[in-house]
Amino acid sequence: MIEEDRLEICFCGSGGQGIITAAIVLAEAAGVYDGKYVCQTQSYGPEARGGNCKAEVVISNREIDYPKASHPVFLLAMNQASCDTYFSDLKPTGLLIVDATLVKKIPTGRVVAIPFTQIARQQIGREVVGNMVALGAVGYLCQAVSPESLEEAVAARVPAGTEDINLRALRAGIEAAKKFDLDTLPELTMEEDE
Amino acid sequence: MIEEDRLEICFCGSGGQGIITAAIVLAEAAGVYDGKYVCQTQSYGPEARGGNCKAEVVISNREIDYPKASHPVFLLAMNQASCDTYFSDLKPTGLLIVDATLVKKIPTGRVVAIPFTQIARQQIGREVVGNMVALGAVGYLCQAVSPESLEEAVAARVPAGTEDINLRALRAGIEAAKKFDLDTLPELTMEEDE
Repeated sequence: MIEEDRLEICFCGSGGQGIITAAIVLAEAAGVYDGKYVCQTQSYGPEARGGNCKAEVVISNREIDYPKASHPVFLLAMNQASCDTYFSDLKPTGLLIVDATLVKKIPTGRVVAIPFTQIARQQIGREVVGNMVALGAVGYLCQAVSPESLEEAVAARVPAGTEDINLRALRAGIEAAKKFDLDTLPELTMEEDE
Repeated sequence: MIEEDRLEICFCGSGGQGIITAAIVLAEAAGVYDGKYVCQTQSYGPEARGGNCKAEVVISNREIDYPKASHPVFLLAMNQASCDTYFSDLKPTGLLIVDATLVKKIPTGRVVAIPFTQIARQQIGREVVGNMVALGAVGYLCQAVSPESLEEAVAARVPAGTEDINLRALRAGIEAAKKFDLDTLPELTMEEDE
């Protein structure tokens, strides 16, 4: 679902949660394996040390003029602080996706809340693949990449020998996201500007 | 050495050479550990499958308005095709850095040619860390990050258990780059536009 021929997705969380890797895998799935135009960005400032981490992916059917995701349609927040910080960037018609293990104060009803970290720990046995569980959910919900491309991109990007647990994590995230019916959610995350 | 308060560095090569990882580590060294403002970008188009791969890093002492490296001061080319494609982006006063193992046709005398892949194979025993050898050279030559920050960023980003070979590769790249005296190089890579 690429509205206006430009889909902006933002991944945020704390350093060490694998946010950048998840964004790169989505970008490679769309760009390398699905043949879309993609731009993937991350920025760091003096506040980056020990703090929040944000990575952006822009996917389009045409060449991309501006590479930043200033008003994402999908915002993944993997911890409370980044949810608090970046929620206001989300388009009013966008969708918030949170790690329900770590984000307890959710600022909208237009949300898909899935315990990514808990699923990684309990179903896969490795909390470190929580990012791949989240990627599975984001990839499924954004409808911009095929599951096959996501799997190819995961297998090509993760460290050799960890393909299996990463792919299992990805699929667990896809399955968890399938249980949500977006049509039952409120239409807006916040009041639109008048 | 951040000229005009904005240093643009471009990494290119073929997919699988670890170009994006090298760019991310440089970005994290400068942004997270050295407290600079950094933006790191990669783009993919329909031509990305099996082809060249390019990643960009912009480092500044101030907030960065435009995140792309349209005219890099340092261009690392890890294979011949990407050297041929991206050399013309380099600033005339910029510096070309190539993997001499794989780039045989070098379009300028203003070049630092180091056999990154061969060093990785012969000194480290793992060709796959050629990207870290190259990163060591680029990090040393661009003077925008401290060696300590580079080491911290490498250790934090590479897969657990591979820190040692990656750090050895980084240091081998730094040592190789130290042998070059940039003052003896021609001042321009190409004719400046009149």
